[in-house]
Amino acid sequence: MISAGIVGATGYTGVELLRLLAGHGQVVVTRVTSRELKGTAVARHFPNLRGHLDLDFSAPDAAALGECDVVFFATPHAVAMHSAARMLAGGARVIDLSADFRIRDIACWEHWYGTAHESPELVEEAVYGLPEVNRGQIRDARLIAVPGCYPTAIQLALLPLLENRLVDESRLIADAKSGVSGAGRKAAAEYLLCEASESISAYAVAGHRHHPEIIQGLEAASGGEPVTLTFVPHLTPMIRGILATCYAPVRDRDVCNAALLQGAFEQRYAGEPFVQVLPPGELPATRGVRGSNVCEISVSYLESAAMAVVLAAEDNLVKGAAGQAIQCMNIMFGWSESEGLEGIGLLP
Amino acid sequence: MISAGIVGATGYTGVELLRLLAGHGQVVVTRVTSRELKGTAVARHFPNLRGHLDLDFSAPDAAALGECDVVFFATPHAVAMHSAARMLAGGARVIDLSADFRIRDIACWEHWYGTAHESPELVEEAVYGLPEVNRGQIRDARLIAVPGCYPTAIQLALLPLLENRLVDESRLIADAKSGVSGAGRKAAAEYLLCEASESISAYAVAGHRHHPEIIQGLEAASGGEPVTLTFVPHLTPMIRGILATCYAPVRDRDVCNAALLQGAFEQRYAGEPFVQVLPPGELPATRGVRGSNVCEISVSYLESAAMAVVLAAEDNLVKGAAGQAIQCMNIMFGWSESEGLEGIGLLP
Amino acid sequence: MISAGIVGATGYTGVELLRLLAGHGQVVVTRVTSRELKGTAVARHFPNLRGHLDLDFSAPDAAALGECDVVFFATPHAVAMHSAARMLAGGARVIDLSADFRIRDIACWEHWYGTAHESPELVEEAVYGLPEVNRGQIRDARLIAVPGCYPTAIQLALLPLLENRLVDESRLIADAKSGVSGAGRKAAAEYLLCEASESISAYAVAGHRHHPEIIQGLEAASGGEPVTLTFVPHLTPMIRGILATCYAPVRDRDVCNAALLQGAFEQRYAGEPFVQVLPPGELPATRGVRGSNVCEISVSYLESAAMAVVLAAEDNLVKGAAGQAIQCMNIMFGWSESEGLEGIGLLP
Amino acid sequence: MISAGIVGATGYTGVELLRLLAGHGQVVVTRVTSRELKGTAVARHFPNLRGHLDLDFSAPDAAALGECDVVFFATPHAVAMHSAARMLAGGARVIDLSADFRIRDIACWEHWYGTAHESPELVEEAVYGLPEVNRGQIRDARLIAVPGCYPTAIQLALLPLLENRLVDESRLIADAKSGVSGAGRKAAAEYLLCEASESISAYAVAGHRHHPEIIQGLEAASGGEPVTLTFVPHLTPMIRGILATCYAPVRDRDVCNAALLQGAFEQRYAGEPFVQVLPPGELPATRGVRGSNVCEISVSYLESAAMAVVLAAEDNLVKGAAGQAIQCMNIMFGWSESEGLEGIGLLP
Repeated sequence: MISAGIVGATGYTGVELLRLLAGHGQVVVTRVTSRELKGTAVARHFPNLRGHLDLDFSAPDAAALGECDVVFFATPHAVAMHSAARMLAGGARVIDLSADFRIRDIACWEHWYGTAHESPELVEEAVYGLPEVNRGQIRDARLIAVPGCYPTAIQLALLPLLENRLVDESRLIADAKSGVSGAGRKAAAEYLLCEASESISAYAVAGHRHHPEIIQGLEAASGGEPVTLTFVPHLTPMIRGILATCYAPVRDRDVCNAALLQGAFEQRYAGEPFVQVLPPGELPATRGVRGSNVCEISVSYLESAAMAVVLAAEDNLVKGAAGQAIQCMNIMFGWSESEGLEGIGLLP
Repeated sequence: MISAGIVGATGYTGVELLRLLAGHGQVVVTRVTSRELKGTAVARHFPNLRGHLDLDFSAPDAAALGECDVVFFATPHAVAMHSAARMLAGGARVIDLSADFRIRDIACWEHWYGTAHESPELVEEAVYGLPEVNRGQIRDARLIAVPGCYPTAIQLALLPLLENRLVDESRLIADAKSGVSGAGRKAAAEYLLCEASESISAYAVAGHRHHPEIIQGLEAASGGEPVTLTFVPHLTPMIRGILATCYAPVRDRDVCNAALLQGAFEQRYAGEPFVQVLPPGELPATRGVRGSNVCEISVSYLESAAMAVVLAAEDNLVKGAAGQAIQCMNIMFGWSESEGLEGIGLLP
Repeated sequence: MISAGIVGATGYTGVELLRLLAGHGQVVVTRVTSRELKGTAVARHFPNLRGHLDLDFSAPDAAALGECDVVFFATPHAVAMHSAARMLAGGARVIDLSADFRIRDIACWEHWYGTAHESPELVEEAVYGLPEVNRGQIRDARLIAVPGCYPTAIQLALLPLLENRLVDESRLIADAKSGVSGAGRKAAAEYLLCEASESISAYAVAGHRHHPEIIQGLEAASGGEPVTLTFVPHLTPMIRGILATCYAPVRDRDVCNAALLQGAFEQRYAGEPFVQVLPPGELPATRGVRGSNVCEISVSYLESAAMAVVLAAEDNLVKGAAGQAIQCMNIMFGWSESEGLEGIGLLP
Repeated sequence: MISAGIVGATGYTGVELLRLLAGHGQVVVTRVTSRELKGTAVARHFPNLRGHLDLDFSAPDAAALGECDVVFFATPHAVAMHSAARMLAGGARVIDLSADFRIRDIACWEHWYGTAHESPELVEEAVYGLPEVNRGQIRDARLIAVPGCYPTAIQLALLPLLENRLVDESRLIADAKSGVSGAGRKAAAEYLLCEASESISAYAVAGHRHHPEIIQGLEAASGGEPVTLTFVPHLTPMIRGILATCYAPVRDRDVCNAALLQGAFEQRYAGEPFVQVLPPGELPATRGVRGSNVCEISVSYLESAAMAVVLAAEDNLVKGAAGQAIQCMNIMFGWSESEGLEGIGLLP
């Protein structure tokens, strides 16, 4: 058994980490920090944890956290970059669910996140925690940058097409729909039930912080070719789930067909425990993966438009955040990759 | 005052027609037909009409309906084509909210709707009831084919771009999100609250019946140029509303810019009572038009991808069905185009 | 045409007033105030008003408001009591949708609202704006205290039973379910979609501010007999609507029966434009009155328990707030009581 | 490891059994029957099971099922009574989640379920599967009648009050709110998203099938005293969850107080793994137990009305059905009572 600390666990990513870790046979959560709720029982803040976790929130304390075997950051951006170094120095491994170490281009990060980066040297060391791409590096990492929720779905949707040079990487589109939990637990009027239910809308059309992170991953998959992606996120009236509808014009309509695309996906994700390529004719829905770490993917070929349409559905709080973080931890500590992640999604 | 009959008014389009006609100063509804509910008070079936409509459902009777000044068909497809001719012969004008007279290519219609068309001559006569395109012809029509819900949003989103030759009409994408009322009131498991809420999914990726209707309209706007459109509809966990997110690569990135696109939309829809082009930087949400006949549109230009992104939000039951039908009726009878359609949407 | 001002119109009661007044033939809204949004177009804050209201929020200005013919307060409690007097002095009539003038017992009000009342003399003058009880007094009033949302439903549910001495007024229970809009538009975590949807819970079991207001009305209906009511409100995962399920043990089981109860309700509300007593066997649902000013009521008699069960459904923002305020205004100014309130509810 | 069969597993109770059994260390599901879906992969019907269950639906076959160690009936009423005897004869233990063996008074059962009972002798043998009452008998039973969803919540809410003679058992009220999954997966118009969302309504006010089952349990708790209960169920716009708000007038207001009630509940449920009595001042919400087998209960005392108000929240598909069935199985087979039931609820 190892010990785990969670920094900033008062939000939805935090409670999901706690839910999943409670069922993990190798980990005991020993510290859960929150400046604001210091001294409050965690299970009072999150009623689903009543009877499962007997721990109070404590103030963040880098030294004490450094004594944990692993520390998760479930904080807004620009927190982990301040204190991750101290925890690493204390001997802990660090898994950051925020954006601080995801983007290798520091100037780009600073542009999108509007502040100076305080630990550029850690960005260099950090491993991007998408196991389907970086499993080997994750194994040896001290510091993991867990991918964002949109980037996970969109990269998994497009990787097989780009790695196999099947589509025109200069004309990609990702139309993504996210449940409201993607905005976190902050009390903003736009996420009130009365504002966000019974409506759908796009946002950040002019540019979203996840865009450079996605591009970075897609360009790596394309062997360094520049990628142009139009990415439009949508706020969808549901709690959990992301559905990414991706449009990719095929490179050579004379050779492309549905079977070829289907084969590319099945081959790419053969053996992956948490990517499920659906059989031809089935399409994913976010309800099929609610509460589970699986990303379900379908690929369709529209011959008349020479267009591949890839649908990827995930639970934004699991495969898009806490579940993926635990998947990385399992790899780092040499456990079964699916330890603690075998729970079946809740349906209905 | 004129008299109106509604055929098949037990579904959501029917009740919306009744709601809107009850507030219309020029029309009295005199017949509401339903084979199944014959003899039942309409207001018992639709509780919002209690106290507003004192009428029972009657069996459909073409002769009696033909004596109405106007007959609305709120039926599934392949009903109006059987009996519209008799009502026209009786002297009524006919406004069909189903698909029977929308597609001019009879073979294409028969392919998509899986049955032989019984009134091809009426297809020729019918006017496609999109006032923003066909206002003049609607004025003189005896028979109106009211556009489908998706086709309304997507055509309004793309017309200014195509008419002005601003975009490449061979590479259009429409990613559309519809509330569940678009599926009608039929009791199918997939539309149960427990199946359709808290989830989003795509459907009919391989081909949707509204696709040829949309193409027909877009090609007319393009001066006959062939249009290629990838259209993916999505079932969204809400009752009402369609949001169409349309992607159109601009034809000439050297001259295109946001102001030019914004201008094209504002000019195209200047004076239109039910199309609202939003100012730059504002994006529509379906909640802004719930219960109203307005289609709200924003256009954005993503310079790096040379991509126009157009968002169109409408209430699928109003501008996408019953409201548009009444708008057509107003034009046909020479009344103010917004008579009965001035109600403000319900928010929240 | 008269002029109307609205103080504090940035919340849901405010937008509902604006929606309904826009369709009112006798009123022009000339001032809409908000300290915070001063200078912003109202239609930018409330997208459903785009194209319907060309007015900016202005800072509250008692003198200017006093020049309006009528001023609505759509503010939190303890605002109207400060400035209503000045507006009355300016010649305006005042319709307060907050709690400031509802409770005649000043000490009781101060206990529940936690502050000293600044205008006790106006409490004495104010008329409680429940037309079904106080129609005559409303006609002559300068100052109206519009009832709360729960009190409206619960009083309408119980009045016929109490006025006719049919039930034991010492053992009443009201189990009320409210949509989330009842909490207003304030950004509190508990009303986020992710917290309030897919869940139901009771709150304020130990005591709710509407309790003394309800008791005051019920005791008046009982001819001054003391009334004991257990009132438990519930937060229900929907935007609009209140359903009050009221339990009243009948006084004399030997004479009571279903027909007698049904008759008492039908007689009591005969001629009431906005109370609809359902026929025996039909039960109300909040969806039947969404967006309308109607309160639907059913009464059932459970013989084995000698219990009357009354269900009252209303739209909390309409009959429970803005619609009732306009109904009062119509009475005050001698217009048709249903002017501007004839819109049909939105279904589905 | 034992083998389990599930009869009629195409509904929500069925999929919940499969979800929970997949995580149970002592059970392998070997047969899942459905006449209609015979030959279809279970995981195709229930997408959350993809990758977790490699089994097809088979036609029901009493002989084959009798070879299982345990058979669950997740069928509508009047199915288990036909074939349970054959399975018992085959050696299987039977856990029936339907109503067939719950009510000991055969005439009463036949009245409410509208058909003749075919196995009255099994009713005599069957043990009512509420572990908090019948743990000892469940241990030795061959046949379990799992309680209904409403009866579970309402009995757990009222037992401590009745067993301790604290309240007047002739004047009880249970106002219960259920998510739509309580109606099962049948395609009926009233449970469509467009009908059941954004609305709340009562139903079966005149009498609900669960009423006699509840009375039977409450009278046993009262030592045979006759109990009068007014029970009104409500359809609530959410997928899962039941909240029962129970009102019980205290017998002796001179001695009753909040601490006494709180103590009675804490003592009654001390050591119960799946009943959580909340500390004074906290109230349950259904979201706190979504997906978990816990029933959360609060008790409040309203002194002025001498009324105990008890709130009980459960997941109707877990503690109200599948979870309770598994809890019974664990007791029957001598395993830890919480085996397979330790999963934490999903929040948000």
